Amino acid sequence: MTSTEQETTLADELSMLVPDGKVLHDGPSLQKYSHDDAEWAPFTTPLAVVLAQNTAEVAAVVRYAASHGLKVVPRGAGTGLSGGANSVENCIILSLELMNRVLEINPGEGLAVAEAGVINDKLREAVAAKGLWYPPDPASSNISTIGGNAATNAGGICCVKYGVTGDYVLGMTVVLADGEIVHLGHRTAKGVTGYDFTSLMVGSEGTLGIITEVTVKLLPLSGRQDRAVIGYFPSLPDAGRAVAAVTAAGIVPAAMELIDSTCLRAVDNWLKLGLPEDVNVMLLATVDEPGSTGAELATKLAGIFADHGGSHIEQATDPEMIATLFLARRMAYPALERLGPVLTEDVCVPRAAVPEMLSRIQASAARHDVVIANIAHAGDGNLHPLIIAPVGDEAAKARAKIAFDEIVADCRLLGGTVTGEHGVGLLKLEGAGAELEERVITMHKGIKVALDPLGTLNPGKAFPQSVTA
Amino acid sequence: MTSTEQETTLADELSMLVPDGKVLHDGPSLQKYSHDDAEWAPFTTPLAVVLAQNTAEVAAVVRYAASHGLKVVPRGAGTGLSGGANSVENCIILSLELMNRVLEINPGEGLAVAEAGVINDKLREAVAAKGLWYPPDPASSNISTIGGNAATNAGGICCVKYGVTGDYVLGMTVVLADGEIVHLGHRTAKGVTGYDFTSLMVGSEGTLGIITEVTVKLLPLSGRQDRAVIGYFPSLPDAGRAVAAVTAAGIVPAAMELIDSTCLRAVDNWLKLGLPEDVNVMLLATVDEPGSTGAELATKLAGIFADHGGSHIEQATDPEMIATLFLARRMAYPALERLGPVLTEDVCVPRAAVPEMLSRIQASAARHDVVIANIAHAGDGNLHPLIIAPVGDEAAKARAKIAFDEIVADCRLLGGTVTGEHGVGLLKLEGAGAELEERVITMHKGIKVALDPLGTLNPGKAFPQSVTA
Repeated sequence: MTSTEQETTLADELSMLVPDGKVLHDGPSLQKYSHDDAEWAPFTTPLAVVLAQNTAEVAAVVRYAASHGLKVVPRGAGTGLSGGANSVENCIILSLELMNRVLEINPGEGLAVAEAGVINDKLREAVAAKGLWYPPDPASSNISTIGGNAATNAGGICCVKYGVTGDYVLGMTVVLADGEIVHLGHRTAKGVTGYDFTSLMVGSEGTLGIITEVTVKLLPLSGRQDRAVIGYFPSLPDAGRAVAAVTAAGIVPAAMELIDSTCLRAVDNWLKLGLPEDVNVMLLATVDEPGSTGAELATKLAGIFADHGGSHIEQATDPEMIATLFLARRMAYPALERLGPVLTEDVCVPRAAVPEMLSRIQASAARHDVVIANIAHAGDGNLHPLIIAPVGDEAAKARAKIAFDEIVADCRLLGGTVTGEHGVGLLKLEGAGAELEERVITMHKGIKVALDPLGTLNPGKAFPQSVTA
Repeated sequence: MTSTEQETTLADELSMLVPDGKVLHDGPSLQKYSHDDAEWAPFTTPLAVVLAQNTAEVAAVVRYAASHGLKVVPRGAGTGLSGGANSVENCIILSLELMNRVLEINPGEGLAVAEAGVINDKLREAVAAKGLWYPPDPASSNISTIGGNAATNAGGICCVKYGVTGDYVLGMTVVLADGEIVHLGHRTAKGVTGYDFTSLMVGSEGTLGIITEVTVKLLPLSGRQDRAVIGYFPSLPDAGRAVAAVTAAGIVPAAMELIDSTCLRAVDNWLKLGLPEDVNVMLLATVDEPGSTGAELATKLAGIFADHGGSHIEQATDPEMIATLFLARRMAYPALERLGPVLTEDVCVPRAAVPEMLSRIQASAARHDVVIANIAHAGDGNLHPLIIAPVGDEAAKARAKIAFDEIVADCRLLGGTVTGEHGVGLLKLEGAGAELEERVITMHKGIKVALDPLGTLNPGKAFPQSVTA
């Protein structure tokens, strides 16, 4: 058989297994689904793409793959930034994007159940209509799915006060590597029966099981009142020192984001938000305590900004104004992507090391003559240096990779971790190999073999095979 | 060799391995360390007891045990209520109670590092002296250790708003089943490098590794202001309905505890707190929002109590008065234990099912002619029916066991879980076998074999070997 005939046969067989799903094997589809938003990481052309419509279909595809020696790469919306959903040799891409129903919203228990393909913002809107709040808010919340959020333990903007995706996942339906379906976790406020497999699945990037439904904890929507404080700083380290001072003052803001001038300009050129032109680094913080408590905290924050070189300091309480400010933050990444492929870092350093890490990033950019823009969840010490190389400039691309590795090494020297929220995927395997102890890597292999002895699910992702020298 | 000679040899060999530690093998010590606070669960006499003083000693003992076919049962303060630290055949009890140093308190990063044997309250005091707060507060906080809290994922009183132990564990040092030492997790605010082994270890009851040091997340101590609201209700279901109404009103209290008259009387007879005599079920709630927000919430709570049959409703803002009220709650369990061995339940049901579950508990008590006292983290749906049988009354003990099983079954029928915070240990193996899917039990076995192929660490605990019919 030719390779095309082989694909056709596979597609036919898959089509019989997933009558409601869609099986794609045309060239453009195979290309479209061949990688997530991490083009810098390696990828292949998948054998086929299946858009599953329910858990049973996911199970059928996994069973088929396992019994035919094929691999399965699960995928939400493909917005990942580490290559976790990039296609590997001999694989079927299994997209859950059509599984987009919110199955239950339960105000009495403070929980919701959603299929894996529900877009984060859609879930947030659905629960808000019932007076509830799902806090985790990755910058990609308008395009990323709750299943992908859970599989990568996605962070976001409000993590500094409200935690990450995993903090809100109570339970899940999972398809295991042999196609069996299990229900993990609980629907009660607390529950400790057996090992915490829910947390093990969260962040495992589809290597131990495919999450098809997620039960999440919700908070009341009421009782909070957003106040934003913005300030502009002459340099990245100046802004970093203001961030450290906020933490030192015992203030836990609801968000504390840093956006540098490269990002501000890229967003404003694109979306015409009317941001000031003569400024450098923006800090955008919010507090959400209601009433006078919140007003006092916002004033304190503004004072700390002023004491650390901040200018143009303003407070905002108008929800629309605040939404516009955060739009600038959320659109920074796509705005930069318009300028060329972006090599995205995701280092997370101790809060006290933020100014030093920002200095080192600038030094790397200068040393290797590459453009590095910066956005950061500064309150968490989670920095996103975005390394940009002009399309087609292979020399610049090579220099970018050197800068990338240098930043990872600096982050480790400062006591940080290679990935705060994007996940290891493929892009951070080397950094993870330097970060994890050899025996901990062995533990990963042991768990992987225990739950996926044939290596069917997303092989080669999420953890390194060996220590990086 | 006689059995006593064998123990002497073992003790001698262990003494050479742990020069700084203490090896105990006298009869009273072996008896003292033979079980935790769950006397109803089975236990044996251990071969020896080692009080380790550092991680290296823990590793040495585990290595020795593994190479000699012995078992190791790790133990904090022995305050567990499910038999997780009960001795098993052929075991060394490895106590971490002497590892009681707080190694680091880092206000800038909002974290502390403590040895496993640090008493919860000691850690809370130590960090409070630096303006920081470690929220998890099991009722046993004055006697239980942070290592035991982590190994069981202990809950507590403030969980309803602030979560459980696992929500605050960032990382840990762990001795694996072959005596190798690993460092899991991170010190940064976020971190997703590799599988979340920290969460897997949390709540695994020492069956996958022995936690010797814990890195915990801290919050600022300031910014909260406790206000208590108490009310008395004519019956358990009445109090349950008041709890459900608080949740339905979208209020998240910092604590919402229920204490029935049996517990109130037992505490007051012992500690002479001067609690009112003509009352039945007490609800004790706190809110901790500062200023007028907190005052409004407390008034709202008091109104809901009144609307649901509450009487003697009072608000308290004086910290000493609030501490006394919570002392009554914290001392309820030890006060009851003075009356005889207590068979402790730990069921957690959906919040809406709290009134019905409390009714069913009362019905079980009446049906089987046993005394069942009740304390509950009512805001979480986490109930602690305490079944009391007079010492030496074997018939009453048998009836108590029937009531225990009936309550577990009722909890499952209402969508609950057999253990909200105490852990499976030995006491809830049967209930866990009914709760967990067969394949999920198989996953437990696979993970256990992957990390502890010889079955050295705390065998037979934490998960059932098969489904319970």
